[in-house]
Amino acid sequence: MSAPRSEDALIEELRAVIGAGPRRSLRLGIGDDAAIWRPSRSHESVISTDALVEDVHFTTAMAPEAIGHRALAANLSDIAAMGARPVLATIALGVNARSDEGWIVRAYRGMTALAKRTGCALAGGDLTRAPAIFFAITVVGEVRPSSVKRRDGARAGDAIFVTSALGASHAGLLQSSAPAAVPEAIAAAVRTAYEMPEPQLAEGRFLAASRNVHALMDTSDGLSTDLARLCAASGVGAQLDRIPVDPAARAVAVARGDDPDTYALGGGEDFALLGTMHARAFEYVAARFAGRFGRELHKLGTITEGAGVRLANGAGLPRSGWDHLRGN
Amino acid sequence: MSAPRSEDALIEELRAVIGAGPRRSLRLGIGDDAAIWRPSRSHESVISTDALVEDVHFTTAMAPEAIGHRALAANLSDIAAMGARPVLATIALGVNARSDEGWIVRAYRGMTALAKRTGCALAGGDLTRAPAIFFAITVVGEVRPSSVKRRDGARAGDAIFVTSALGASHAGLLQSSAPAAVPEAIAAAVRTAYEMPEPQLAEGRFLAASRNVHALMDTSDGLSTDLARLCAASGVGAQLDRIPVDPAARAVAVARGDDPDTYALGGGEDFALLGTMHARAFEYVAARFAGRFGRELHKLGTITEGAGVRLANGAGLPRSGWDHLRGN
Repeated sequence: MSAPRSEDALIEELRAVIGAGPRRSLRLGIGDDAAIWRPSRSHESVISTDALVEDVHFTTAMAPEAIGHRALAANLSDIAAMGARPVLATIALGVNARSDEGWIVRAYRGMTALAKRTGCALAGGDLTRAPAIFFAITVVGEVRPSSVKRRDGARAGDAIFVTSALGASHAGLLQSSAPAAVPEAIAAAVRTAYEMPEPQLAEGRFLAASRNVHALMDTSDGLSTDLARLCAASGVGAQLDRIPVDPAARAVAVARGDDPDTYALGGGEDFALLGTMHARAFEYVAARFAGRFGRELHKLGTITEGAGVRLANGAGLPRSGWDHLRGN
Repeated sequence: MSAPRSEDALIEELRAVIGAGPRRSLRLGIGDDAAIWRPSRSHESVISTDALVEDVHFTTAMAPEAIGHRALAANLSDIAAMGARPVLATIALGVNARSDEGWIVRAYRGMTALAKRTGCALAGGDLTRAPAIFFAITVVGEVRPSSVKRRDGARAGDAIFVTSALGASHAGLLQSSAPAAVPEAIAAAVRTAYEMPEPQLAEGRFLAASRNVHALMDTSDGLSTDLARLCAASGVGAQLDRIPVDPAARAVAVARGDDPDTYALGGGEDFALLGTMHARAFEYVAARFAGRFGRELHKLGTITEGAGVRLANGAGLPRSGWDHLRGN
């Protein structure tokens, strides 16, 4: 018996087992936000799978509509990170005789509301007994071949950007278990960020349409883990000059006596889009982004030669993000 | 708190929550073997999701290669039932700190071998902590629009057929837990049927190409449940004249003092294809089927007006198949 070492190590081993796919129509396999294949010349399809498990990602004490929303949002965020438009989703649902059927139906309501709003059909799936409730969701999306963005396209000299300030989801998670004394507006903001994160589909398509954007992924596991993955996939390093912490998350961190940066670096589940682009295009793209979405495109730093993520002061950044197996 | 009533009842309730999909490109949603959408005019894509859960569908005392094989085979059987060709699969994998990583890698080997043989790329997925190991697999396939077969196309007067004799998987399941005294060749045959079921992809494409075939689905939950579902979807009834029991399954049933018919009616997981066709085309199609696949296309009975499945003696058939929630 050997215990799993870490998510990345097990993924590497499984990737080696799987090897190369038998179909040349498959353009991108395991390891990116989603897989891509090309059913016709005019467009590509992308597919993404995510699972949410009871007592790992949620408890049934939580609002079911929010759990359903988050389960689908995580997948839609992967589709956003490919610059794609969602088409349909399938759901494998695990339940047991102790499961509250009303709770599950309400979770489906949360999922359905988000699906309708984003143009994603819920196209069936599977229902099975399981010791804990789980939702394993797969979303298929479509994208023009010229617009597909991957995480392995970053080039030395690129500006690193993120589409939202980070850390609010983690602050909301902390507040939901042990609330610190913050103004109600702050508490509500981080709670919403945690419970009902909005997949940045329009932002993804906007950025994917720009030839200056070289790499794109979503921030699901915390900036330090996600940026390290982007760099590793692209064979580059990064210098991080600035960590944009969400103002409400910062207020919660201060109230709890925590370092706000750690919420952005290690928290995860913010579902912002993290990417890199030609440095000289940044001002122009950021101005158009602000005009379109009414908020800042945050510049974090610069892609460097070599490997590893360093802070401006030269210190190395630990990979302190969420590891799904260790649960740290 | 309300406990789930049955799989079909919960599916009905969730279907009502989901409602109609927002995309007209989605041709078939929840309830069939797979969902269908049309990314281009020349072909349609189909998608199917199935989950296998530790201690529900398998235990880690079982050969991991066989578990991986079965997990993918169940999905490929759904693709076969649509008359489609598999393109790619994604996998959401649940593991925990107690999980044996070597066992999981070997399960992936079993999956990979079947995927390669059937031209299905394994295109990534998600890895998550979970209290029990689970594999939630989604397969995407492609089919010519004119060839798509659904379960709701049966018409009164149609001949009902199945592409293999049934019950061997159930016999193998029983033999694996408490072996009865049967010749080793019999034991091996039912063990293989249970552990390494072969999705009938070529048979599905062969039948889908015939305009005389009106309905098609796979037998995953036992003939009585599956035929009742086909009839309900098509708004028809059925008279069952003959229950084709696999010879090795029959030998096991006799050795155990069981009624062999119950293995075919209630066993499930045979992954044969069950369908209906124009009665007058049966002899011709069955002869071509035998020529192509070297075995009989079994005729079971006739689709009738009205509802419900009746035996030739007029008795109603109980829906004794596997219900995923009750586990009967």
